[in-house]
Amino acid sequence: MAKPVCYSTKAFSTTGATAPLSAATIERREPTPTDVRIEILYCGVCHSDLHFARNEWGFTQYPAVPGHEIVGRITAVGGAVKKFKVGDTVGVGCLVDSCRTCPSCRAGMEQFCDLGLAGGTYGGTEKHLGTPTLGGYAQSIVVTEDFVLRLPANLDPAAAAPLLCAGITTYSPLRHWKVGPGQKVGIVGLGGLGHMGVKFAKAFGAHVVLFTTSPGKVADGQRLGADEVVISTDAAQMAAQAGSFDFILDAVSASHDINAYMNLLKRDGNLTLIGAPEKPLPVAAFPLLMRRRSLSGSLIGGLPETQEMLDFCGRHNITSDIEIIRMDQINEAYERMLKSDVKYRFVIDMKTLL
Amino acid sequence: MAKPVCYSTKAFSTTGATAPLSAATIERREPTPTDVRIEILYCGVCHSDLHFARNEWGFTQYPAVPGHEIVGRITAVGGAVKKFKVGDTVGVGCLVDSCRTCPSCRAGMEQFCDLGLAGGTYGGTEKHLGTPTLGGYAQSIVVTEDFVLRLPANLDPAAAAPLLCAGITTYSPLRHWKVGPGQKVGIVGLGGLGHMGVKFAKAFGAHVVLFTTSPGKVADGQRLGADEVVISTDAAQMAAQAGSFDFILDAVSASHDINAYMNLLKRDGNLTLIGAPEKPLPVAAFPLLMRRRSLSGSLIGGLPETQEMLDFCGRHNITSDIEIIRMDQINEAYERMLKSDVKYRFVIDMKTLL
Repeated sequence: MAKPVCYSTKAFSTTGATAPLSAATIERREPTPTDVRIEILYCGVCHSDLHFARNEWGFTQYPAVPGHEIVGRITAVGGAVKKFKVGDTVGVGCLVDSCRTCPSCRAGMEQFCDLGLAGGTYGGTEKHLGTPTLGGYAQSIVVTEDFVLRLPANLDPAAAAPLLCAGITTYSPLRHWKVGPGQKVGIVGLGGLGHMGVKFAKAFGAHVVLFTTSPGKVADGQRLGADEVVISTDAAQMAAQAGSFDFILDAVSASHDINAYMNLLKRDGNLTLIGAPEKPLPVAAFPLLMRRRSLSGSLIGGLPETQEMLDFCGRHNITSDIEIIRMDQINEAYERMLKSDVKYRFVIDMKTLL
Repeated sequence: MAKPVCYSTKAFSTTGATAPLSAATIERREPTPTDVRIEILYCGVCHSDLHFARNEWGFTQYPAVPGHEIVGRITAVGGAVKKFKVGDTVGVGCLVDSCRTCPSCRAGMEQFCDLGLAGGTYGGTEKHLGTPTLGGYAQSIVVTEDFVLRLPANLDPAAAAPLLCAGITTYSPLRHWKVGPGQKVGIVGLGGLGHMGVKFAKAFGAHVVLFTTSPGKVADGQRLGADEVVISTDAAQMAAQAGSFDFILDAVSASHDINAYMNLLKRDGNLTLIGAPEKPLPVAAFPLLMRRRSLSGSLIGGLPETQEMLDFCGRHNITSDIEIIRMDQINEAYERMLKSDVKYRFVIDMKTLL
């Protein structure tokens, strides 16, 4: 396979774990026959962007460009592209490719590809160029049409950007564990992920209980759709919920007492982690044994399910609560994100990348 | 409800956490209309008996009589008993009663009764007398017919006794997680539970891999039905099994590296704990997230499933590998059990309780 010709596009990148992000010019491949080129309109700011920019997972290659909550408009299509045309508004999430042949890929669960996250939008490998993939803090991106998603026309494109990661990350486990009417569902943590979890669980018809450590978030939790808000540091409030949940979605990335939540599950109830605490969580065996409870994890979603999620959001008019920032505010946004000072997702207006 | 008249029966009991078990006379209720009286022929020796005798769970009331793998013959039936008659060979497991009204009891999953293990064969509460329940290290026991199980006639009654706890403890999770042909199933630990797990997983048609720390158990694992035996301390052998299991049954009660086993599961694979390590297990989030794996617990089984298990054992001629002991060898047996010096279950011949 000959290397495709490249073109230059503006981006914001970082040259090292302690360097700020700043303006740069990067190379993208020109679209191959099955690619589309997308002018990026908005890019959400995910906590993973910060982990990656600062090499907190240990695999970052520099210069690095984060960003995997991409909404944009197609400006060019390769000769063999079938699903899209110039002018379409589309989304790109955490994946821009996968092996396409392993059992998970063939089942449309590319997030569990046997190659791991080699197809990641950033931190993966650009198959055509053999270079690290560069993410969505940029004016444009080129992606195989198979990893591009159709954005429902009624959704605000800026507020829809976070659906590509925060949205699918919460939608997928709620669907997998069949959350629906008649069920009591807990959402732990009200941040970028948690606030989408509340919206989806409510839209699926469940009785939704938000767990937060912040009394200041009670009113907001209710506004977002929670039927109850429990202050998780209040032992009496926690005890009152014992053994009553069908499902709990745990969106907390910091270390926390998982056993306290396991005890809130009914028989055969499941708690799914979508945050990834750095250190192993101490899990007590008895709460698992006594009610046959289970503890799981979930990771974004595959392409078919991500499209299903976007279509569901279109029908139910669901988007993220966002604060729009300029590209040059990204370093400050990271600092605010570390203090949970965002309701509930920063989104970069890419027009500001001049 | 008037307290029923009592009778005396010989037993082996202990008077404190550090006292040996010794001969004693205990009181049982005379059968009420729905009870049967059982002459105990054999009683298996479960590790829980030792935990309970030595108050390692902190709730033992003395004098205490362990034993919940009971096989015997009915010697008397109450006037309203419908399922059994004098002379029937029957089994009694870990439960002699439950609340009968909570959702789990009504679903035939009495092991998850909202009252917890109040209906335990030992360490529970004798509803009629208001005293602690006393277990099967005794010449006879009186049990409501609803908690008595029919023993298939073709099974050796001594070797069948451990089915009442070790059997159902392994059968239930393998059934719940739908282990069958075409699946690769791991059994961790070759002891009283693990050796039954190997037998059942094989009988269900799975490809069975036994994990053990003891090279000396390889041949025995194969004899019991394992298709492969992996020495779990051998990193290369473990690495060769990565991502290949549908289900793993973890029968180890000691602290061990659960993450090493989580990494052996396929996408959507489950690891179920049936041993209960004393300290919380450190569980890493990434192995759960990356393949949507889950970690569960399981606890014995309900009455309907226990009968189903016994009937299955009858059809497939499955019993435990046992070593028969005299009642007065019980203290020595506990010491040997602590050294894993038993293949694979001690069973007390109750004729020796004179």
